[in-house]
Amino acid sequence: MEPEQKLQQLKNLLAEIADLNQITALLGWDQQTYMPPAGAENRGYQLATLQQITHTKFVSDEIGKLLDDLQPYINQLDPDSFDACLVRVTRREYEREIKVPIEWVAEFAMVTTVAYDAWAKARAENDFPHFQSHLEKILDLAHRYAGYFAPYEHVYDPLLEIFEPGMKTTDIKAIFNTLRPQQVELLKQIASRPQVDNSFMTLQYDEDKQWQFGVEAITKMGYEWERSRQDKTLHPFTTSFGWGDVRITTRVYPNYLASALFGTLHEAGHAMYAMGSDKSFDRTPLFGGASSGIHESQSRMWENLVGRSLPFWQHFYPRLQELFPTQLGNVPLQAFYRGINKVQPSYIRVEADEATYNLHIMLRMELEIALMENHLQVKDLPEAWNARFQEYLGIAPPDDSKGVLQDVHWSGGLIGYFPSYALGNLIGAQLWERINADIPDLSEQIRQGDFTDWLSWLRQKIHSHGNKFEPQQLIQRVTGSKIDPAPYMRYLEGKYRAIYNF
Amino acid sequence: MEPEQKLQQLKNLLAEIADLNQITALLGWDQQTYMPPAGAENRGYQLATLQQITHTKFVSDEIGKLLDDLQPYINQLDPDSFDACLVRVTRREYEREIKVPIEWVAEFAMVTTVAYDAWAKARAENDFPHFQSHLEKILDLAHRYAGYFAPYEHVYDPLLEIFEPGMKTTDIKAIFNTLRPQQVELLKQIASRPQVDNSFMTLQYDEDKQWQFGVEAITKMGYEWERSRQDKTLHPFTTSFGWGDVRITTRVYPNYLASALFGTLHEAGHAMYAMGSDKSFDRTPLFGGASSGIHESQSRMWENLVGRSLPFWQHFYPRLQELFPTQLGNVPLQAFYRGINKVQPSYIRVEADEATYNLHIMLRMELEIALMENHLQVKDLPEAWNARFQEYLGIAPPDDSKGVLQDVHWSGGLIGYFPSYALGNLIGAQLWERINADIPDLSEQIRQGDFTDWLSWLRQKIHSHGNKFEPQQLIQRVTGSKIDPAPYMRYLEGKYRAIYNF
Repeated sequence: MEPEQKLQQLKNLLAEIADLNQITALLGWDQQTYMPPAGAENRGYQLATLQQITHTKFVSDEIGKLLDDLQPYINQLDPDSFDACLVRVTRREYEREIKVPIEWVAEFAMVTTVAYDAWAKARAENDFPHFQSHLEKILDLAHRYAGYFAPYEHVYDPLLEIFEPGMKTTDIKAIFNTLRPQQVELLKQIASRPQVDNSFMTLQYDEDKQWQFGVEAITKMGYEWERSRQDKTLHPFTTSFGWGDVRITTRVYPNYLASALFGTLHEAGHAMYAMGSDKSFDRTPLFGGASSGIHESQSRMWENLVGRSLPFWQHFYPRLQELFPTQLGNVPLQAFYRGINKVQPSYIRVEADEATYNLHIMLRMELEIALMENHLQVKDLPEAWNARFQEYLGIAPPDDSKGVLQDVHWSGGLIGYFPSYALGNLIGAQLWERINADIPDLSEQIRQGDFTDWLSWLRQKIHSHGNKFEPQQLIQRVTGSKIDPAPYMRYLEGKYRAIYNF
Repeated sequence: MEPEQKLQQLKNLLAEIADLNQITALLGWDQQTYMPPAGAENRGYQLATLQQITHTKFVSDEIGKLLDDLQPYINQLDPDSFDACLVRVTRREYEREIKVPIEWVAEFAMVTTVAYDAWAKARAENDFPHFQSHLEKILDLAHRYAGYFAPYEHVYDPLLEIFEPGMKTTDIKAIFNTLRPQQVELLKQIASRPQVDNSFMTLQYDEDKQWQFGVEAITKMGYEWERSRQDKTLHPFTTSFGWGDVRITTRVYPNYLASALFGTLHEAGHAMYAMGSDKSFDRTPLFGGASSGIHESQSRMWENLVGRSLPFWQHFYPRLQELFPTQLGNVPLQAFYRGINKVQPSYIRVEADEATYNLHIMLRMELEIALMENHLQVKDLPEAWNARFQEYLGIAPPDDSKGVLQDVHWSGGLIGYFPSYALGNLIGAQLWERINADIPDLSEQIRQGDFTDWLSWLRQKIHSHGNKFEPQQLIQRVTGSKIDPAPYMRYLEGKYRAIYNF
């Protein structure tokens, strides 16, 4: 058989696997949006069956042989070409997945399906013990998973690799070790200044109008509803069932404006990344994004670098005031802008300001590493959480619902994911410097409600590449350097010096 | 290996196949409820991939061999036992599916996915030509499907067998030939009587309150929300993703009370049948119902035999009046009862009264048979529809949206399904006579809003058996005779003689 035919054969097999992965994602979406309570058991079986089939199909000898046979042919191609990237990325994922036994895959699916419901109940009822045994099972699964990749430099590396291909625990620690003292120092400076008022954020806001504003804003920013929809969930997320179907969710609180407002912008950033993949990438492993961190750079850009910027609100604030005249009619734009950027240590990560956010992440990563190193037991996790929270942010959560139970991730088996959030902040700021260099009047365009150039830049430089490059490679290509915390610190300092006058 | 082990092995394989079929159902549910428009292409691929996998797994040599090996063991068991029924039903489905090539399965999935969207658009825009080529492809698929079962007594038999195991086209024709003249005669008698007024049905009714009443009514009737939910779709349906997750949909019109009201009761009847399967049947081919016709007997019982009965409204009417005081405050119970039972030839099958409904079905079945016999071409279908409609019901649809395009079924490839609706009416009445003989004070119980005995009867005699028996066997067991149109005619005559005074 000619290499071209073998390549086509590989693509056909990968297309089926992409279909199955999309279906898995739909089962997850439904579970979090509309599934009735008693559906969890069946959903667990469905996911376990489906993931076993997907896994078995992907790690087949047939795919392994095609990858081997194609290597000489691929070596002659431009390494940036679609075909070269497809084979390279497939091989990377193949060599990872083939190490994982099918029994682990099935058990992971069953355990996490049941754990999600247990977590939701535990969180609603502030009952960590209800979730504890589930989390123990998940940690056990994570340990066994890491074991399949021994020897490793660090037990956390195999988990990190799932979300940030090519990055090691030491790389992340180095970045965070540079960042932490600078963020702590900045926080001190801000804390010494007179505080800003954001009490308007916690007035009563009609839920439908909040929803409506979010939809209006992202629509104006170029969101493509033909290929998307938004629903309500306990924890907002973005998911994709192929190029034509990328969905976001949000949550709306009647007495907290920020949640739906910035949550919708955040998820729209993720979704636009997925929707921006070249259509020819659909049903291949190149569809989607380069890593969770790159993904997060997009969502944080929509949410913060744009969504909490003055030009953005110079455009959108009149409309928000129109929707909420009693709440915001007497709040001037500058006061609103300062309010939404108020720095204040708080309990909930997704509602944290930009100056404290990364501290929430470091806390989680350190706890995950301690759990993986067996220096911490699940039963002691709430206490460890609260102690470290006090240490980093100067406050302790009033209960576990606002502490260790707040995030959905662990219930879904996502150990090793949190660092991507902090990386996303850094990458976002790094890209933002480049974008503003390339589009000098971007602020003015945003002030006019014109997001065309910005979106074109993202599409061309980031989105269209899908999953072709590893995160470090992609950032190197676009900015000329690897992931670097300096732009983020420059961004934070510039922003907060202006807001807090120092 | 011992037979018990082989049986367990078979059950394990069937459980996986059940999971996959449930997932297919979820993909369909999502497509009709929440999928964004551009998601159709991906959904087609997903369904095609999934159905190919499911089909291949089911018709495997492994299952074939297990069925053969187990036969001697099964022959010694009580034929009504779970294991005997499981092997018998699995063999029946296995022998059917093994005749169908995998390419057909994949093509059917792709064609029907795209056809659904084309149908929805064609119906919305009254544009049959937009749907025509899709329906032609579906008819071609149906012809090829029938071909796999040649030689057959009638080309329609292999299609009918999917929905009504054990029944032949001649059986159905015989039943309908007995029924048709009696229904036509009854219709004539009714038409000669002074008409009843149902103008209150088409006033403005708040959609949320309509929804609320439906939910209240089925809740009181014993509906299990823990395992279910209701959503809105273009065409109402019931679907199931296992014992713990059975969902219904409805549609609500602001100016037509009957649609949501009786639609919700109808779908609840289907859902309660599925939910009433013994839990041990979950993830086996015995879960669900005996046939589409038996399923329809349940839904029509909830909708008509109970839902359009006087005792039902003696209980529920005060609440409906409370929700709609302006519309119904001055409509006495008797007038309401007569109104919801008004007999009047109309265009839309799902809104047809009980006296004309079966004529809608006969029309469809005859057209399907003509298409399958190649005596009618798809392009001539609207004309044939309208001509026959005029002949049977004395009116002609004003456009194709209210005519040939009204039903979703053909877009989903469901050729051979419609007869089940008429059978369902007959079976429902047949069961109803038996139930009333077994529970003499049932009317009084319903008048009191007590549905406990009725539901227990259904659970015990019908629901709990799932798919253990063929429809004719099940009805024979429960009523002592095969499917018989006489009880339905007795029911119709009794009801309409009272309403129309003749």
